[in-house]
Amino acid sequence: MSQSGLNMSRRIRRTPYTDRVEAHGVRGFSVVNHMLLPKAFAPTVEDDYWHLRENVQIWDVSCQRQVEITGPDASKLVQSMTPRDLRKAQFGQGLYIPLIDDAAGMLNDPVLQKLDNDRFWLSIADSDILLWAKGLAYGMRLDVQIEEPDVSPLAVQGPKAIALMANLFGHKIHDLPYFGFAMFDVLGTRQLIARSGYSKQGGFEIYLQGGHLGTALWDMIWEEGQKYNIAPGCPNLIERIEGGLMSYGNEFTRANNPLECGFGPLCHLGSEIDYIGKTALQRIANIGPTQRLSGVRFGGGKAPPCGKPFPLTTLDGEEVGQITSGIFSPRFDCNIGLSMIARSHWDIGTSLMVHTPDGIARRASVAALPFTHDG
Amino acid sequence: MSQSGLNMSRRIRRTPYTDRVEAHGVRGFSVVNHMLLPKAFAPTVEDDYWHLRENVQIWDVSCQRQVEITGPDASKLVQSMTPRDLRKAQFGQGLYIPLIDDAAGMLNDPVLQKLDNDRFWLSIADSDILLWAKGLAYGMRLDVQIEEPDVSPLAVQGPKAIALMANLFGHKIHDLPYFGFAMFDVLGTRQLIARSGYSKQGGFEIYLQGGHLGTALWDMIWEEGQKYNIAPGCPNLIERIEGGLMSYGNEFTRANNPLECGFGPLCHLGSEIDYIGKTALQRIANIGPTQRLSGVRFGGGKAPPCGKPFPLTTLDGEEVGQITSGIFSPRFDCNIGLSMIARSHWDIGTSLMVHTPDGIARRASVAALPFTHDG
Repeated sequence: MSQSGLNMSRRIRRTPYTDRVEAHGVRGFSVVNHMLLPKAFAPTVEDDYWHLRENVQIWDVSCQRQVEITGPDASKLVQSMTPRDLRKAQFGQGLYIPLIDDAAGMLNDPVLQKLDNDRFWLSIADSDILLWAKGLAYGMRLDVQIEEPDVSPLAVQGPKAIALMANLFGHKIHDLPYFGFAMFDVLGTRQLIARSGYSKQGGFEIYLQGGHLGTALWDMIWEEGQKYNIAPGCPNLIERIEGGLMSYGNEFTRANNPLECGFGPLCHLGSEIDYIGKTALQRIANIGPTQRLSGVRFGGGKAPPCGKPFPLTTLDGEEVGQITSGIFSPRFDCNIGLSMIARSHWDIGTSLMVHTPDGIARRASVAALPFTHDG
Repeated sequence: MSQSGLNMSRRIRRTPYTDRVEAHGVRGFSVVNHMLLPKAFAPTVEDDYWHLRENVQIWDVSCQRQVEITGPDASKLVQSMTPRDLRKAQFGQGLYIPLIDDAAGMLNDPVLQKLDNDRFWLSIADSDILLWAKGLAYGMRLDVQIEEPDVSPLAVQGPKAIALMANLFGHKIHDLPYFGFAMFDVLGTRQLIARSGYSKQGGFEIYLQGGHLGTALWDMIWEEGQKYNIAPGCPNLIERIEGGLMSYGNEFTRANNPLECGFGPLCHLGSEIDYIGKTALQRIANIGPTQRLSGVRFGGGKAPPCGKPFPLTTLDGEEVGQITSGIFSPRFDCNIGLSMIARSHWDIGTSLMVHTPDGIARRASVAALPFTHDG
């Protein structure tokens, strides 16, 4: 067993950066896509949070695996997997896309990158989309190859990320729009860099192709980062919840449809495109969703870690949702959480109760996402 | 963060038994199928090992999730997913089946249980076979439903398991052949119990349907187990390797074909049945596999934990495999491991070297599986 208490094995894959992450004294890991994701470095998650908001961090997000779909039918397969209209998708523009099954249940929420007319990367959350895509391709007799390439994203996040990245990769870094990507010279190779990341503090992700370059890339960023007070980091629970960033498996699962997850604006319901689950999604749209992903503020002092969902009830004790991710926000000076909330109680400002495992019933109110000082 | 260093969240699912497992002081978890798997209870893995060989243990193996396939085309879909001939499959007989893709790459190695002519459970290792099956079913336009039912296997393992189980569930327990299953009365419900488990010490798995019954089932077994010196446990790395039990993701991946994993006797290559990957598998069979999963004994004192695979080389340093799971066996008084080994060096007794991360090059020899005092 490792120092972190998580048993290491080949099955739970190390990344090209794990040696460096361990050398920096990582305090724990999670597992995403059968791969290690660092979960804490600084003594507390609040220390990590403040550092991320003010400086720059380097994150090993290799677990954002790519499902590469290539071949004459690649475009057809990718469109069949998502309700988002991809007809205008183009190189250089990352697209956040819900993936759904034939019952309109959420399977994943990757970022799609169109590398060419017949070549796509899906940068996935925690489910084996490679198997879903391969099953579809086999059954539909599509002419595609589907693989997991040797690509391990490394994120550089925080307000000082842009200066750091421009120093290393040139002024062209400034030209990238949010979610945009381009190819850059990195360690003598051509690599995809996107202006993206799982925080709202700004930053970039380097989709490093070639794991053997991992240590050199880490070290190059680390060295240049010294003048920006760089620290090792990872997706930060406080910052993520404040920003309203969802996590597949936490806030939503296959039991949820994209409309209740807030993907409505990305879902094309007209006749121009066709995709798996369209009929089911149209039916849901006609009735209207019965619940919606929302923010919840709750008091009662610092809540315990949200390892199991916290029941969310009316003042009378009727369950109307559950907090699936929650933590104390030092900036808002209260607990904040994410929850699907039943239609009857989803209006902003509705008074509710959160029941934490320490036995405390906490006053709560529904809040807009992302959390703001006004909302 | 939990005491174990693994961050808890809804995404990494708790099981119906996790409360009990924590109450027993579990010292760490792994993650399988997006669910917690306890990894250690006793002070050392050797303590757990000796206890398992001599007594009885209760294991939370809920992470062995079931993929339930029902409907008129269920039988057709299941046969399409495996090279094993299922024409004679029948209720009451669990079947270990390799699942492969169209290139004959291993996707999983579940136990199949035929519950009815149109209803099957695949008790899976760590990959989202539900998505593979759903993709195939959609693409092939099969009339099936595919779900993950509320079924959480609880294992009772060790030489005293049979007496304990017979006390609780009646004499019929004795009639179950190895891998056989039948329905039993459990807490006022009908539940599937199989003579199976991820050890070679004998035992049973209760496929508990209805997570709300988890605590009651655990407590009933725990209480009756007192007279048999029961302890909480989990798959034991020493015992598993000694017994030659493979682990998907560790010993083999999609890069491996079933023949090199030792599934040859289960693969039907004739014309009587058809399945995905058959052409690729026939091609591999004609050439013969180029490597084979084998045992390796190696010395040099107790090896460090095998968190990263250990290179396996000839005496001249040529790499011929890698130890993917390895540990010191107190019974054989040497290190033992599992490795794919190139055809040129797979003969039992071949002298090789294992290179561990502590910098030691260790004398090794190829051994038969399971490990024995003779082999």
